[in-house]
Amino acid sequence: MKVVALAGGVGGAKMADGLARILPADDLTVIVNTGDDFSHFGLRICPDLDTVCYTLAGLANPSTGWGRADETWNALNSIRELGGPAWFQLGDKDLGTHLERTRRLAQGEPLSKIVRDFSRSWGIAAQILPMSDHPVETWVETEEMGWLPFQEYFVAQQCVPRVKQFEFRGAQQSLPAVGVLDALEVADCLIICPSNPWVSIAPILSIPGIKECCLKVPVRVAVSPIIGGKAIKGPAAKMYEELGINPSVLAVAESYRGLIDGLVIDRVDQAYGEPLEKGGLHVLVTQTIMQNYIDRMNLAKETLEFCQKLLIFRKGRT
Amino acid sequence: MKVVALAGGVGGAKMADGLARILPADDLTVIVNTGDDFSHFGLRICPDLDTVCYTLAGLANPSTGWGRADETWNALNSIRELGGPAWFQLGDKDLGTHLERTRRLAQGEPLSKIVRDFSRSWGIAAQILPMSDHPVETWVETEEMGWLPFQEYFVAQQCVPRVKQFEFRGAQQSLPAVGVLDALEVADCLIICPSNPWVSIAPILSIPGIKECCLKVPVRVAVSPIIGGKAIKGPAAKMYEELGINPSVLAVAESYRGLIDGLVIDRVDQAYGEPLEKGGLHVLVTQTIMQNYIDRMNLAKETLEFCQKLLIFRKGRT
Repeated sequence: MKVVALAGGVGGAKMADGLARILPADDLTVIVNTGDDFSHFGLRICPDLDTVCYTLAGLANPSTGWGRADETWNALNSIRELGGPAWFQLGDKDLGTHLERTRRLAQGEPLSKIVRDFSRSWGIAAQILPMSDHPVETWVETEEMGWLPFQEYFVAQQCVPRVKQFEFRGAQQSLPAVGVLDALEVADCLIICPSNPWVSIAPILSIPGIKECCLKVPVRVAVSPIIGGKAIKGPAAKMYEELGINPSVLAVAESYRGLIDGLVIDRVDQAYGEPLEKGGLHVLVTQTIMQNYIDRMNLAKETLEFCQKLLIFRKGRT
Repeated sequence: MKVVALAGGVGGAKMADGLARILPADDLTVIVNTGDDFSHFGLRICPDLDTVCYTLAGLANPSTGWGRADETWNALNSIRELGGPAWFQLGDKDLGTHLERTRRLAQGEPLSKIVRDFSRSWGIAAQILPMSDHPVETWVETEEMGWLPFQEYFVAQQCVPRVKQFEFRGAQQSLPAVGVLDALEVADCLIICPSNPWVSIAPILSIPGIKECCLKVPVRVAVSPIIGGKAIKGPAAKMYEELGINPSVLAVAESYRGLIDGLVIDRVDQAYGEPLEKGGLHVLVTQTIMQNYIDRMNLAKETLEFCQKLLIFRKGRT
């Protein structure tokens, strides 16, 4: 079974890692949000891509979920000493990634090729792809501060301003990265990882051609990033609320309406199973919180079995 | 007594540090070679400036003379892991300097202003100035590999190719950095630190206006970087040889002919004292090797006393 997963940062990376631990390497492609990429100190920084890569390579910091394990902070401390901007956490090991990526981008290499080579260097067997080789920027309109580029909202302002809407600037002029449409075309199932629907998954779907190609994948399921009305990490629940939507698995289903035919929800949201099914969705209720490698693998395994069932069901109907 | 010192890398930095430990802060300006500055990974790197600043700030690595003490190498190891170019030693703390400098240069700030602010942050009291706020590039013509940019010759090729000549590209279109000519105009003496005459001092003198202004300083002395026919560090002696010149204090005197009226040479070169004096130079024979802080201060003290004597002598004559 060929699988394409869509992923943003920490939660998506954990699920992608679970899938990578179970599926044969050739059967998994992870398409990663690059809408939160930005330039800082002249370096091109791709937070979600790095989180996914570090996680699948076993290099991620287990306590934060982002950044690298056994990291040092000497460069950032030097910058702080000089009165420079130290709001973005630039670890020393992590800096090496940004430096080498920036060097290669400046030589004209597409991001997807760089990610492929980095993956190989880090011993990642699955195929990891940026959503696009073109720069697409997520901007957040806030009540208090107007339009903010994503990292300014997310890191510098720590998601405090109330959101009004999002824009993925450059998306209309962009193309899917080399390999994205190919992977979707041969996929048996699409798994939307438990990432933020507004700022992790929506940017991926904003790239011309990706959503259309996703819709051709026989089975499409999402894993809810909302558990018991809250997000494990990040501002997803807060965003739903600020946009006037009650943050629940129903809201997640609504976000992906027309795109998915199955939703994976946590046991604490079991009561939503029936209304979701009445709304036409297949539902898998299981433990979706991933606190360790076993949890990641279990969630991946159950989600894959769920997909398999839907695939058989679908084939039975056609 | 107002002093201007011209300095390149490690040897010049040590002497400048000796001067800074003795002179009142307001009386010392160090003009530093920036001809070996280069861009690497998109970062602007100024090896001599950083060596001088780190040394005067007490942050320098005591065993290498360049780079920072208690340095870590995690970023460079990451780059190496990814197959990137690791020929230039980029320490993590050092990287912070390059990142913040690059960020501020990109905002249009002149290098001299950045150096002033960095000096203040690092607690350096003396005035440190780059020779120019404009990019000037030292290129080395070699027998084996043709023209090489300085760092390619110096670090990547480790000074192995035989030199034929040097060019300071961009010098004719450049101006002295803000403050350079002002400092020279009020200086009582000019001290050329024991730096490489070909690639550390010559680039400084190539900036239009600097040499002319140096010649107006009442007393001008150089400390020979050649001791017993050899350089303590770096390719100065090798360069003299490859250019068909016997590397000795006589060769150093010849390099600075017309510019200096005094030369400080090491005790091992005492025999050259008489021929140098016959050639019209005042000579100070002393210990010029600086193995510790005491040596730096002693050399600085003796050189300053030598300058003082020449100043009185000169005043007596006029």
